[in-house]
Amino acid sequence: MDTRTGLPVVGMVGAGQLARMTHQAAIALGQSLRVLAAAPDDGAALVAADVQFGDHTDLAALRTFAKGCDVVTFDHEHVPTEHIRTLAAEGVKLYPGADALLYAQDKRAMRERLSALGAPVPRWRPDAADLASFGDEVGWPVVAKAVRGGYDGRGVWMLDAGSPLPPGVELMLEERVPLRRELAVQVARSPFGQVAAYPVVETVQRDGICVEVLAPAPGLPEELAVAAQQLAIDIATALGVVGLLAVELFEVDGGLVVNELAMRPHNSGHWTIEGARTSQFEQHLRAVLDYPMGDTTLTAPAVVMANVLGGEPGGMSIDERLHHLFAAEPGVKVHLYGKQVRPGRKIGHVTALGDDLDDVRERAGRAAKWLQEGSLRPRESQ
Amino acid sequence: MDTRTGLPVVGMVGAGQLARMTHQAAIALGQSLRVLAAAPDDGAALVAADVQFGDHTDLAALRTFAKGCDVVTFDHEHVPTEHIRTLAAEGVKLYPGADALLYAQDKRAMRERLSALGAPVPRWRPDAADLASFGDEVGWPVVAKAVRGGYDGRGVWMLDAGSPLPPGVELMLEERVPLRRELAVQVARSPFGQVAAYPVVETVQRDGICVEVLAPAPGLPEELAVAAQQLAIDIATALGVVGLLAVELFEVDGGLVVNELAMRPHNSGHWTIEGARTSQFEQHLRAVLDYPMGDTTLTAPAVVMANVLGGEPGGMSIDERLHHLFAAEPGVKVHLYGKQVRPGRKIGHVTALGDDLDDVRERAGRAAKWLQEGSLRPRESQ
Repeated sequence: MDTRTGLPVVGMVGAGQLARMTHQAAIALGQSLRVLAAAPDDGAALVAADVQFGDHTDLAALRTFAKGCDVVTFDHEHVPTEHIRTLAAEGVKLYPGADALLYAQDKRAMRERLSALGAPVPRWRPDAADLASFGDEVGWPVVAKAVRGGYDGRGVWMLDAGSPLPPGVELMLEERVPLRRELAVQVARSPFGQVAAYPVVETVQRDGICVEVLAPAPGLPEELAVAAQQLAIDIATALGVVGLLAVELFEVDGGLVVNELAMRPHNSGHWTIEGARTSQFEQHLRAVLDYPMGDTTLTAPAVVMANVLGGEPGGMSIDERLHHLFAAEPGVKVHLYGKQVRPGRKIGHVTALGDDLDDVRERAGRAAKWLQEGSLRPRESQ
Repeated sequence: MDTRTGLPVVGMVGAGQLARMTHQAAIALGQSLRVLAAAPDDGAALVAADVQFGDHTDLAALRTFAKGCDVVTFDHEHVPTEHIRTLAAEGVKLYPGADALLYAQDKRAMRERLSALGAPVPRWRPDAADLASFGDEVGWPVVAKAVRGGYDGRGVWMLDAGSPLPPGVELMLEERVPLRRELAVQVARSPFGQVAAYPVVETVQRDGICVEVLAPAPGLPEELAVAAQQLAIDIATALGVVGLLAVELFEVDGGLVVNELAMRPHNSGHWTIEGARTSQFEQHLRAVLDYPMGDTTLTAPAVVMANVLGGEPGGMSIDERLHHLFAAEPGVKVHLYGKQVRPGRKIGHVTALGDDLDDVRERAGRAAKWLQEGSLRPRESQ
């Protein structure tokens, strides 16, 4: 407990933009998020009062960090499962726990477990041993995934018949699902077992990176929206998740297929900061603190979040770009992560809200493009 | 400039709840607010990464603090005018500047200037010398105000004929205005001269402290609302304010009378965090950074902010109260300032939003009362 405020202390391992925005939400709840940062210029380390430095794979660093925290949670999935188990055995409260987090860390374990639960998943193989026969069965190309450690399109390969396997990485195989589009649904679950679901969103990817999120997913039949929320609630409950769970889905002919799971605030939920009555960051804190969940209602009929990726170096500074953007779009909300600009790196996001999806989407897209490129010329690589 | 982010550095003198919530807004803009705190447990010092300690009346401390800030602004009005002038002469950019801030620091100067501008003010006298004749002219009781340093009902006295003057304080006199109710309007002005006005709100006071803000002010005729916004815009422009200006108004038969001015984010604007597209804290930052102003549109037809005052010691902890509140009111937004509870001290606020003012007001009031008292029994002093 923080003796200055009489409130419990939440620690977050990792100090990227998720921790940064969680700290923002923590302030309203009377909290100050404690973060374990790798470097002083990590997004959250730049803005939080309570920063410790250390490696998230170092048990001793984690142990020191956890001391004085009432609950420890995560900005990413990369803390070794065995360290989480060790700390839990030593009495540290960690959410999500190792038994749940495993399914966000290990894609093979996730596929096994979801299959056993009867959740809709692509056809898959636990390793690459029978690539040829699997490809002949499900059709080429086949999706090969790193069992651990992939994100934002990294750790995923499309293999044609006879393709060499990517070297030095433990692989599993999945069929390439003939998808209509990608959806995502966030739920939060508390230790008490309360679960709250956000509206289902559409996520738009480019080169394996999410560039845009549309909330609510346009034209999604009500029964499919409810099915997606129920699926996420069932998964959160079955896996014993505490905190946020993001379920990434493929919409296919005849229904839904689970793509990935994340157990933390997630890029597909950034729209909730302005677009839902309770942001995913506040919700994650409420969940790990075992507070009752907040209202997940939309605040506008149409909400669009667009990621801002780092553009080519040179040209207008971010500060100048902000000036122009705010002049052109006084209603677009900007979130910058305090990161040095590198091409392709997520350096922030923008959110637009309104009554008309097309209008909102155009405003968000234009704002993101402007921050990214400092120019409104058509993107060459589109 | 912050070399890590390429963005300008904003420093705020004072580290109370206004700085705390300004820091929250700064994070989204890629910033980290630098604060000058008096003590480690100041609300903003608990949550900000960039904290310096010092006395806001100490020129040397202010000078050290300003070093490396691109712009310096204020959490309160208590920095001596002459220090602001000295620093400005040394090249520090301070917003609002001394020439504007004076009118939020010195009530006599404010009355003189507003009278000269033709703004509606109560009848007043620059000192208490002719109390008896003034009282006979405008009616008893007469309002005596400390020329400098009053806030939240402190520094204000009601004097009847023959009352002794409060000792040891420089006074001015005002007529007691027969008011229907109190209103407030926030505007923000940038160095460029752009001004943006928020909707006019009603502020409800109890014992001289604002307990509730209703946005927009219910039943306010459109022409009076526009007149109030225009008045605030005119004052901001005439005084050369940069940043937020809150104009506290009395609604009287036949129009409006200016009560007080504040040149910073203000309690009467806390509703904007969820209730307006751009919060007053973001708007203040945009103004002092000379960014174009954000959209001030309401996000719901009715928004009510209720202050949470510290209750009597003992009983349920704040943490327990939060549990119960969140269970009962999943849609009410809570803002706690990290303060030790002392009876009557503002320790936070809550905001409710919706379509129906009566419903929203009841939810906000009940939530504030609960956090305050840990009980729903009727308040004895009501």
